[in-house]
Amino acid sequence: MISPKFLGRLGFALLFALQPGFAAPYPSFGTVQTTNSSGVLNAVINNTASSTNLFDYRVQADLANLVETLQANDTDIRVVVFSSGNKEFFIPHLDVDYFLPGYGFPDMTFPPALLWNISQLPQATIAMVEGRARGIGNEFLMSCDMRFSTTSPSVLFSQLETSFGFIPGCGGAMYLSNLIGRGRTLEYVLASADIDAVTAEKYGWINKAFDTSAAMKEYVHTLARRIALFPLAGINGTKFGVSAVSRPSREDIVQKAQAVITVLAQLPATQAYATKFVEATHNQSIGELELNYGQALLGLYNVTEEELTN
Amino acid sequence: MISPKFLGRLGFALLFALQPGFAAPYPSFGTVQTTNSSGVLNAVINNTASSTNLFDYRVQADLANLVETLQANDTDIRVVVFSSGNKEFFIPHLDVDYFLPGYGFPDMTFPPALLWNISQLPQATIAMVEGRARGIGNEFLMSCDMRFSTTSPSVLFSQLETSFGFIPGCGGAMYLSNLIGRGRTLEYVLASADIDAVTAEKYGWINKAFDTSAAMKEYVHTLARRIALFPLAGINGTKFGVSAVSRPSREDIVQKAQAVITVLAQLPATQAYATKFVEATHNQSIGELELNYGQALLGLYNVTEEELTN
Amino acid sequence: MISPKFLGRLGFALLFALQPGFAAPYPSFGTVQTTNSSGVLNAVINNTASSTNLFDYRVQADLANLVETLQANDTDIRVVVFSSGNKEFFIPHLDVDYFLPGYGFPDMTFPPALLWNISQLPQATIAMVEGRARGIGNEFLMSCDMRFSTTSPSVLFSQLETSFGFIPGCGGAMYLSNLIGRGRTLEYVLASADIDAVTAEKYGWINKAFDTSAAMKEYVHTLARRIALFPLAGINGTKFGVSAVSRPSREDIVQKAQAVITVLAQLPATQAYATKFVEATHNQSIGELELNYGQALLGLYNVTEEELTN
Repeated sequence: MISPKFLGRLGFALLFALQPGFAAPYPSFGTVQTTNSSGVLNAVINNTASSTNLFDYRVQADLANLVETLQANDTDIRVVVFSSGNKEFFIPHLDVDYFLPGYGFPDMTFPPALLWNISQLPQATIAMVEGRARGIGNEFLMSCDMRFSTTSPSVLFSQLETSFGFIPGCGGAMYLSNLIGRGRTLEYVLASADIDAVTAEKYGWINKAFDTSAAMKEYVHTLARRIALFPLAGINGTKFGVSAVSRPSREDIVQKAQAVITVLAQLPATQAYATKFVEATHNQSIGELELNYGQALLGLYNVTEEELTN
Repeated sequence: MISPKFLGRLGFALLFALQPGFAAPYPSFGTVQTTNSSGVLNAVINNTASSTNLFDYRVQADLANLVETLQANDTDIRVVVFSSGNKEFFIPHLDVDYFLPGYGFPDMTFPPALLWNISQLPQATIAMVEGRARGIGNEFLMSCDMRFSTTSPSVLFSQLETSFGFIPGCGGAMYLSNLIGRGRTLEYVLASADIDAVTAEKYGWINKAFDTSAAMKEYVHTLARRIALFPLAGINGTKFGVSAVSRPSREDIVQKAQAVITVLAQLPATQAYATKFVEATHNQSIGELELNYGQALLGLYNVTEEELTN
Repeated sequence: MISPKFLGRLGFALLFALQPGFAAPYPSFGTVQTTNSSGVLNAVINNTASSTNLFDYRVQADLANLVETLQANDTDIRVVVFSSGNKEFFIPHLDVDYFLPGYGFPDMTFPPALLWNISQLPQATIAMVEGRARGIGNEFLMSCDMRFSTTSPSVLFSQLETSFGFIPGCGGAMYLSNLIGRGRTLEYVLASADIDAVTAEKYGWINKAFDTSAAMKEYVHTLARRIALFPLAGINGTKFGVSAVSRPSREDIVQKAQAVITVLAQLPATQAYATKFVEATHNQSIGELELNYGQALLGLYNVTEEELTN
């Protein structure tokens, strides 16, 4: 039987679905700036302390606050559209400082629990991507209901964790295997390779790629407004059904994956690679390695593309 | 271990698989007319009481009778090909009268149990689509093993339930997330959008789209006859294996989804929308709303496409 | 929680991941010849006793020995690339002699347990296909992490078991339903149809198809070398996560499927078909039936393509 907990949550959603709509200004949270109208909340992730829109403690805390507000559902928001304030980077990856020797390894269940909560929101969630989304950046996209991007060469998706000696720790590769099949998932994820938007659309990694930013925005705006016409309870119930069969379990993402991450991330080899990475990126700032990690990582392994080919 | 129940069913199937084939006329059931030859049963759904081939009580009862006959498997039928007698509508949706205030809300577990039983038939099941298949019409397609259509503009697929304030209640969106991934599933289902046959084939929603009705019929006929050469026990066992990993569970479809539907469908907002829909369609007869629901639903929400875009 | 068994295996993998790499010659095993360099093991399946590279007892035993060596992981192998020594056949199917009357039906859990163990290897596994891969040949491909082929007309994939009156017994159709969806899986598997490389790539059955053998080898070589740069523990952990949500269970493949196979394979009808097949192929040697089974099987059923179409 369906859990009383779900019916409870549903009832709660219904209560507000029945209220007449209004568009009071929605709170913003530091690195996450919001605007709203017609039931659609636009949330722009803009970590101005980082040149690459790094997914650091600030972004995590601000997103957690936004999620809590959306869970409480005290407005008529029915659709959330996430985008980035940085046109070169959607989200580059998790703050690699966490993995440096002596940093004091943080509670690694916080990021996956945050992304799990995003996947669990009663509202429809749409990611609108410009720039790179690697590592937890791609896992953020996977945790949203839908993903759209432009075909700009700046748009690159990747789970880069294997190259660090660990694993996608927030379910990114698990979600991906539903979208593009386990074969292509393992090809891209084990190789820590970048995929461009056209190929990503072809395989189903993203919903659709648009030639221009304007075309993407018009499509997403219209789609979001359309979904926001409908009662929240139906949106929530439909998501609940689809997720029951196509989403990794919370246990797989938050407990099991983190047990593995916690072991792997504290290995000397992993910490040594993290140290090299932070040095080579001049503390995770814009440069060849952040812009072009899929190819540039070979330099950290002291090989060239020609050497791999021969 | 495999359940004794399955091995029992298998043994039963084997018994008849070993019989020499014969082609006694197969029974027809009111709105579902059959013909058979060479182990292939053609079942045409033709609800002449409705201009849109509505999935009402009659169609449900007739299909349930057909399913019971096929389960008992007292002939050499190995493949069932479903089509529609109405070239504009495969099946438009469930009878919306069920959701009108004061109608006397029916047992909502009957339709999903019927579709579950179709998914569970020992025979291979193929849907050959001309016209629209929305709501439970698309869920019927999902419950078949395979789906083929023409590229005619009359062919449109949709799960339209979210626009009514409820959810696809027979597992349609759950099946779909295996076929096209959870991202595209949520895009189309949350938006209650129509998808055309060419895009549906590209994404994997349907197996294949054909330029002409004749080309589709030849392909499906040859495919059905070919499968019907093979022993029923192997067909049944192969379906059993594939379904074990890629079909939503009966509990998800019949118990959980119906618990949600039962709550949602009786909400005043849902009933008000159903009332508007039945009025605007002149009691579910052919017109702009039934022909073109994906766009025309905006009228019921009192918005235009231009307003959504701006 | 994650099983202590997995963390144990992981710890074991880590131990060796931390060792400096070396490239001692790797053992070969009769029909499976190996070479290795830079962490990549090339394993060529070449059953010279068979003109079609038959998956007989020898190949099974040799692969089982290789798998045991890779599980023990006593070298720095991080990626295994499987190919065939026979350019017309990757693997044609299981030895059909097993199903002849009076053969003495073998333990049918050995092949699926072997393929399960391949899917479970800590190393990344890549199949590089030239020639036909049917039945257990395709199931072998499914049990690898990734699959690449040329577009040569000699490349054909198929689960042909339904035409014999049984089922894909090593999970082939189950894996396939993750890659190409349950609709196209049932279309091809129930029909025991061949699929060519271009269509297989389009649907996602294989990762990618290349115009030439040289192009495939360069791509796979570079991909394998790249993955082999990374620590084995991350490769293993990433595979573990993806498999947790997208791989059929060992119980589904080894227990349940074998319970069905054991019943079906001993039926008189199945044994009669196997006898016909072995006679018509002149004891499973090269000829029209092995080269072109997808069409030629109709001859064993005494029908022509024209008869099916009419």
